[in-house]
Amino acid sequence: MNEIKIFSPGTVANVSCGFDVMGFCLDNVGDEMVIRKVDQKGIRITKIEGFDLPYEADKNVAGISALAMYNALDLDFGFEIEIYKKIKPGSGIGSSAASAVGSVFGMNELLNRPFNKTQLTEFAMKGEAFISKCEHADNIGPAIFGGFILAKSVSPLQILEIPFPEDLYATIIHPQIEIKTADARGLLPTEVALQDAIKQWANLGGLVHGLHSGDYEVIKSALHDVIVEPHRSKLIPHFQEVKEAAIHAGAVGSGISGSGPSIFSLCKGLERANEVKAAIEAIYSKTGIEYDIHVSKINSKGIKILN
Amino acid sequence: MNEIKIFSPGTVANVSCGFDVMGFCLDNVGDEMVIRKVDQKGIRITKIEGFDLPYEADKNVAGISALAMYNALDLDFGFEIEIYKKIKPGSGIGSSAASAVGSVFGMNELLNRPFNKTQLTEFAMKGEAFISKCEHADNIGPAIFGGFILAKSVSPLQILEIPFPEDLYATIIHPQIEIKTADARGLLPTEVALQDAIKQWANLGGLVHGLHSGDYEVIKSALHDVIVEPHRSKLIPHFQEVKEAAIHAGAVGSGISGSGPSIFSLCKGLERANEVKAAIEAIYSKTGIEYDIHVSKINSKGIKILN
Repeated sequence: MNEIKIFSPGTVANVSCGFDVMGFCLDNVGDEMVIRKVDQKGIRITKIEGFDLPYEADKNVAGISALAMYNALDLDFGFEIEIYKKIKPGSGIGSSAASAVGSVFGMNELLNRPFNKTQLTEFAMKGEAFISKCEHADNIGPAIFGGFILAKSVSPLQILEIPFPEDLYATIIHPQIEIKTADARGLLPTEVALQDAIKQWANLGGLVHGLHSGDYEVIKSALHDVIVEPHRSKLIPHFQEVKEAAIHAGAVGSGISGSGPSIFSLCKGLERANEVKAAIEAIYSKTGIEYDIHVSKINSKGIKILN
Repeated sequence: MNEIKIFSPGTVANVSCGFDVMGFCLDNVGDEMVIRKVDQKGIRITKIEGFDLPYEADKNVAGISALAMYNALDLDFGFEIEIYKKIKPGSGIGSSAASAVGSVFGMNELLNRPFNKTQLTEFAMKGEAFISKCEHADNIGPAIFGGFILAKSVSPLQILEIPFPEDLYATIIHPQIEIKTADARGLLPTEVALQDAIKQWANLGGLVHGLHSGDYEVIKSALHDVIVEPHRSKLIPHFQEVKEAAIHAGAVGSGISGSGPSIFSLCKGLERANEVKAAIEAIYSKTGIEYDIHVSKINSKGIKILN
């Protein structure tokens, strides 16, 4: 096999109470990429469709992660990468992570899997760090492992796969405005009140417990963010209205996806997720702001081969 | 039944990464109390053995929690309380929680259980707040529910019971010096670095996951405290030596029990817990400081009737 086509999924990081450490994987939102083994040494990006991104491998997230893996090996051949970008950069649903993961996953498959998922995560993090200015795994992790993950630590890298109820769905609205991850990080305080931090870790502990035990009441009570959302939600038009409408329509929780502007809602069952979608559209369709909206089962598999 | 004798267990709060929210229950360390239904209205403490504590119900933790419950009812009789105190006040293993829980648990049994465990926790918190100056449930919760608990919130009170591996044991050393909870709280900063808070909630999420899945490697990687231990450990003689010796002897983690001075270590299996006990005694027996040391299975039942 010299060529592989893959689907690299979108992901939701932070998940309200899990800033920088929690993330989950989407099912039907993601990029497609083709990775091709070629005689010429090195990494070349040969095609980019969908968005205007750099072709130089060392300036493109997918190229940087690919180079990180390539340079860890001693190969007498190289790879070409084609990127069919569906996730808009700066959307908050893991656009750069999808690119970073796609190249290394595809290369690893073509090489007969010399690396495990944790190692792939480490290579992909090099690519994402180029954009976000720091290494984190809360988008990369769920894209590679699927499901819900807790990126317990970055150094050493430790990704924990958290079980979750089978009928958990997400509704994601992506207002078509761009927020750069690095800018969104700049809004955050460097110090937080100990009492707020205690609330946040109580909620994160509750979320992990609620996911493990499939207890939607506990999940609902845990999906609150007293640290980051108060700052970042100001960047997102109509955030509070959307959140309130989602909860009113039966979502178990709603919050900023990654660094925004996308807003995720978690729901028990597809029907409820569609009702939440309708409630959110009723608000956003009046704003004049263009948007995409998706309903997705939580993707338990993560990135996958398409052919 | 007009009289009941109960065992009110010691408890370990905080558990390294779970400051103010996590706690677990001990098996063979605790107070005994007798609660007696009597014709005379009101709450009277008629006997205290072990330590010098106030007999006035409204100045004694057990009396205050008993009064909180008593005043919520409209009874034409009263209760007497006898306290056989084994847990030294200020030990850091839930001495005041044991007192606060004992009276309300015993009264509830004599009244044929009008209140559930969460309601008992609320009454008991009134007693403990008299000592610690704020309401928290990380000792009360495990004393009443048993096992490991996450006190997810105080208002409304939400206690989550976290499953844990059956072969989990604790070794507890109690140096015979007193640290008042209120003093230990005074040492803490009101603000913490966001990056430290992130580490702490990643660890707490990891601990909850590790306990749920019985994964001792994950539990070990999670039992770190970057927020509180650096401040409070200074109050505890030879803390670092004890911690290092415990880990070296095979403990999965070691940290301050509650606000100290007791130090807990968690271990897989009784044999390992006894080895950790020996390693800690080898250090503490040379210090000239008197100490108690206990090995306990995690007590899954909590407070219990003795007769």
